[in-house]
Amino acid sequence: MQPNPSTTRAPRVLAGDLGSVEPGARATLAGWIHRRRVLASVTFLVLRDRSGLAQVVVKDRATVEQLAGLPEETVVEVTGVVAANESAPGGAELVEPTVTPLTEPALAPPTELWRPTFGAGLPTHLDHAAVTLRHPRHRAAWQIASASMRGFREALGALDFTEIATPKLVGTATESGANVFTVDYFGRTAYLAQSPQLYKQMLVGVFERVFEVGPVFRAEPHDTVRHLAQYTSLDAELGFVRDHRDVLAVLLAAIAGMVEAIGEYAGDAAALLAVELPRVPEEFPVIHFRDALAQVGADPDEPDLSPAHERALSEWARTAYDSDFLAVEGYPMGKRPFYTHPQPGDERWSNSFDLLFRGLELTTGGQRLHRPSDYAAAMERTGTDPAVLTGYLDAFAHGMPPHGGFAIGLERWVGRLTGAENIREVTLFPRDLHRLEP
Amino acid sequence: MQPNPSTTRAPRVLAGDLGSVEPGARATLAGWIHRRRVLASVTFLVLRDRSGLAQVVVKDRATVEQLAGLPEETVVEVTGVVAANESAPGGAELVEPTVTPLTEPALAPPTELWRPTFGAGLPTHLDHAAVTLRHPRHRAAWQIASASMRGFREALGALDFTEIATPKLVGTATESGANVFTVDYFGRTAYLAQSPQLYKQMLVGVFERVFEVGPVFRAEPHDTVRHLAQYTSLDAELGFVRDHRDVLAVLLAAIAGMVEAIGEYAGDAAALLAVELPRVPEEFPVIHFRDALAQVGADPDEPDLSPAHERALSEWARTAYDSDFLAVEGYPMGKRPFYTHPQPGDERWSNSFDLLFRGLELTTGGQRLHRPSDYAAAMERTGTDPAVLTGYLDAFAHGMPPHGGFAIGLERWVGRLTGAENIREVTLFPRDLHRLEP
Repeated sequence: MQPNPSTTRAPRVLAGDLGSVEPGARATLAGWIHRRRVLASVTFLVLRDRSGLAQVVVKDRATVEQLAGLPEETVVEVTGVVAANESAPGGAELVEPTVTPLTEPALAPPTELWRPTFGAGLPTHLDHAAVTLRHPRHRAAWQIASASMRGFREALGALDFTEIATPKLVGTATESGANVFTVDYFGRTAYLAQSPQLYKQMLVGVFERVFEVGPVFRAEPHDTVRHLAQYTSLDAELGFVRDHRDVLAVLLAAIAGMVEAIGEYAGDAAALLAVELPRVPEEFPVIHFRDALAQVGADPDEPDLSPAHERALSEWARTAYDSDFLAVEGYPMGKRPFYTHPQPGDERWSNSFDLLFRGLELTTGGQRLHRPSDYAAAMERTGTDPAVLTGYLDAFAHGMPPHGGFAIGLERWVGRLTGAENIREVTLFPRDLHRLEP
Repeated sequence: MQPNPSTTRAPRVLAGDLGSVEPGARATLAGWIHRRRVLASVTFLVLRDRSGLAQVVVKDRATVEQLAGLPEETVVEVTGVVAANESAPGGAELVEPTVTPLTEPALAPPTELWRPTFGAGLPTHLDHAAVTLRHPRHRAAWQIASASMRGFREALGALDFTEIATPKLVGTATESGANVFTVDYFGRTAYLAQSPQLYKQMLVGVFERVFEVGPVFRAEPHDTVRHLAQYTSLDAELGFVRDHRDVLAVLLAAIAGMVEAIGEYAGDAAALLAVELPRVPEEFPVIHFRDALAQVGADPDEPDLSPAHERALSEWARTAYDSDFLAVEGYPMGKRPFYTHPQPGDERWSNSFDLLFRGLELTTGGQRLHRPSDYAAAMERTGTDPAVLTGYLDAFAHGMPPHGGFAIGLERWVGRLTGAENIREVTLFPRDLHRLEP
């Protein structure tokens, strides 16, 4: 066995842990030079690492001069003596430091990253995302996204769901013909999956309860603040439901898990962005689509809710139920996909729902058809050739339970929580009509 | 608020919990008819749900006749009386049942799913995956995959890694020009990402420690038993490493987490497939590439290890170190991608490694370059136009720490654990040169 060729270095202390090191002890920090503040007799170096910020006090002339050549964002290792200081982050700072650059001096970022507010516009941010995502506010937004994914999985894992990974390259664009990307697949045409919908249903036949967190693709031809060409979909599907209300109960558990995980794993990020975490009720308030139209004074023949309707309904739910959430059930069958289960007793309506969250549609879900004869009828009604869906229809012919599911758009969730005006603000490297880089 | 329109049904008991219901009590099971065994005086109905199998004893003439019309795979609800029976799964069975079909009678599957061994060939399985994945051996293989993803995330979450979601649609196919799928992206050409490599490096600059579990795409033109057009990559990358040995230590933690999670969440699946879980050592044994060639008697100028070499080295590691794992470090720079960090002091070799597991390369990883001047030289050496990598090179110009990472192919891992001869056996709906359906 080879001896480990690593050079020996002092063990690193994270910025956030500096306050728990005994004053007087030596410690080594490593991170990015977040800011240098040069005063007459002292230079303050603020170091940033994954845990936060730490202050380093430099009085030694040679080190002050060295720092003049190490601009913000340069990566350094700093060894010094820990000193208590109530006004420093964490109540401690590093004094008498030795600074060792770990790379070459950094170029200046497109905007100063140490300022509390991000000082440039969205295009500048997106063009330079590899650098500007380092701004604490951008980092924080994604930490909320990351914690949300974790909470979603933990909640569903606890409910005995199996994680799946489904094909993103599919042979037919049947779920919805529009807005689909085409791929040259060994000389044939393939499509990028717009959702794992058909696969998660098939896999209910295998595992009963499944979820997937993964990319979905929409060739969205419009330049809007709420659509992306690729986004992260939090999908779940479960069998042996009575109807869509059982699905809604699992959605509630998933959202409760997401909110809890943000508190647990991204509490500092939520605080930095002044995110007010929603209170998740015991049960979501539910209104029927028909009654929702009446509530907002819309024509009873309207086939869908407009964004203005959604905002008005959310306002109403806030007043009537003190709730950030409102489920609207019973959407007209005509506007729902072919696999949608009708409302028993009145087939104009469906056993599907949208969940509104603070004025915006967050989730669509519902009960799906499960009888093969119902699929045959749906194919005929919608003029779909069953031959292109053979693999999917197989599942129903060979026995599928009553089932349903939902999908949450991760970026939309985080955007709503953080109050982002544009969904691109809460996406790591967004893709849209105009943007394929970086 | 609407009243819940669900019909009331008896609470369901899972097959695996039947043994903990008091004998004499009534219980309701729901699931698939796994098998009917018709004897002269009794019919045994074996019901399958996500937790396993349960036995139902039918003596009543009318119910026996009803079951004659409910073939295997039909989904039913069964209410009856719990009775102790040592020879039934879980030590209990259901007697005096009432059977209610939850869908129409099922078509016969392409092969009998109740037989302990899957009775058809791989093409039949893949053509009918929505149904044949229900076979307990296929389910079990994916349960191991699912648990592995969970263990990977739990291990890295505990080490303070942030989960990321990176673009799968990219503007340049620079990481490796070959085997890339092209996409019509609003009239431009985009490519499907072959890995999150460049993005996970950029995001080390933001979060220090990142991981992603997601699909990657290879337009693999060869029909082999170990390559897929889409597979699930378990990717990690971390900053502030001394060299690749620090990366290897995190890889070990990730694999230990995966093995532990299989034991915890997929123990029954592992037992069914007779998976011998590897013992994860305190440290992986490591051999230098140069010494590995000598060990297997290969020409010292060989630029890579052949599959036969990998098998021989794994055998040797088993004998010399009693280890299922062997890390080979120092691969020649010429065979590694442009971002690879050379071995200090001898730049013929690299600070990269492959991890061999039971004869097969499981993971490639290593330290990456982090100085902008090293990237400039690497671009020149490999003839890469820096303009196509602007967004990526930005990160280094603006300060990046020494870093490295690795990627584990999920399907390859599960295939090796279960002894699958073809990686398609452990993939839910594989994609390859010939297959885009179901």
